[in-house]
Amino acid sequence: MPQQQRSEETRARLLQAALACFSQAGYDATGVAEICAHAGASKGAFYHHFPSKQAVFIELLNAWLDALDAQFNAVRAQAAPVPEMLRQMARAARGVFADASRPGFTGQAGQLPLFLEFWTQATRDPLIWEKTVAPYQRYEAYFAGLVRAGIAEGSLRAVDPAAAARMIIAVAVGLLLQGLANPSNGDWGEPAEKGIEMLLHGLEKP
Amino acid sequence: MPQQQRSEETRARLLQAALACFSQAGYDATGVAEICAHAGASKGAFYHHFPSKQAVFIELLNAWLDALDAQFNAVRAQAAPVPEMLRQMARAARGVFADASRPGFTGQAGQLPLFLEFWTQATRDPLIWEKTVAPYQRYEAYFAGLVRAGIAEGSLRAVDPAAAARMIIAVAVGLLLQGLANPSNGDWGEPAEKGIEMLLHGLEKP
Repeated sequence: MPQQQRSEETRARLLQAALACFSQAGYDATGVAEICAHAGASKGAFYHHFPSKQAVFIELLNAWLDALDAQFNAVRAQAAPVPEMLRQMARAARGVFADASRPGFTGQAGQLPLFLEFWTQATRDPLIWEKTVAPYQRYEAYFAGLVRAGIAEGSLRAVDPAAAARMIIAVAVGLLLQGLANPSNGDWGEPAEKGIEMLLHGLEKP
Repeated sequence: MPQQQRSEETRARLLQAALACFSQAGYDATGVAEICAHAGASKGAFYHHFPSKQAVFIELLNAWLDALDAQFNAVRAQAAPVPEMLRQMARAARGVFADASRPGFTGQAGQLPLFLEFWTQATRDPLIWEKTVAPYQRYEAYFAGLVRAGIAEGSLRAVDPAAAARMIIAVAVGLLLQGLANPSNGDWGEPAEKGIEMLLHGLEKP
């Protein structure tokens, strides 16, 4: 195997191992040594690819957000009316979130406990805070723009776009947490789609 | 000071110290020793009052939920129309949440990082899971009952009460997390009240 390819495989294995360790034991309780042991890689290999445990953490967050962005961009490319795009985005996010909603203590390493970990870490670490708040603000601007477009095209009532954007994100995040709290409720998708319908009932022009 | 009173003061001091330690350093990173040092109490005193660190954690959660319940019960006692009660509950929760929304890394020990910690811990610890999910299900039933009452009195559309209850909780939790992510957005209350208005626009009968 060429060295370049081997190096990329090691990097991917380290990321996968970090995700598993963070999700199961938590960010605080996980050391670089555990990640290396889980990945079957040396500390030298780790520090070749990442400056710190925190860098791995932030890279995992970005990878997760990239997957979400790709789904949203695919929906937006269709240029449908805004209420229809919001419905499709809820459906698209379903796939991204479904994989992520398995709790760690069952032995499966879901990404959602990690998502929660981001927020708890963010409240304690200014650098993670910045990396967590930056994408959040990006989504706020993104949905505010979408709502503004909906008002302009006449499909949405003349609500405050920033407040509506916050509501959309709050509903998404809140329902994610509910799925985490109570997996027996079923997956995120069905309540999310019902939720978006209820919210749209308040936003759409009759 | 009578012994009984001294004992209760020690207990309260231990709870306060645990809250401060958990919020600032995290649940995992906090030991009984740190809590005792922070409270100026002995380990003997700690174990006289609490069987474990986990028991303290769960007691703090319950105290927080009790404060919320007291506010909700006060609103419900007025027997106003349901949409008006929901508006008042959003306002009432404002006070309970406002104190809790200061991030730990600024040096202030807010309760909200702790709230997040509950969820992350819950995904890893079946006992905490049970204690966290139980109140969640109680709130779900509570708001479903409220929505049902609203439909019966003719103030709300005939929506699915369980789905509406989940939405109400999702919005509350989601907005809480947003306040945490971005305290410069201002306090929870104003966006929460706007959010409830948007949601009610979709729930209320015209």
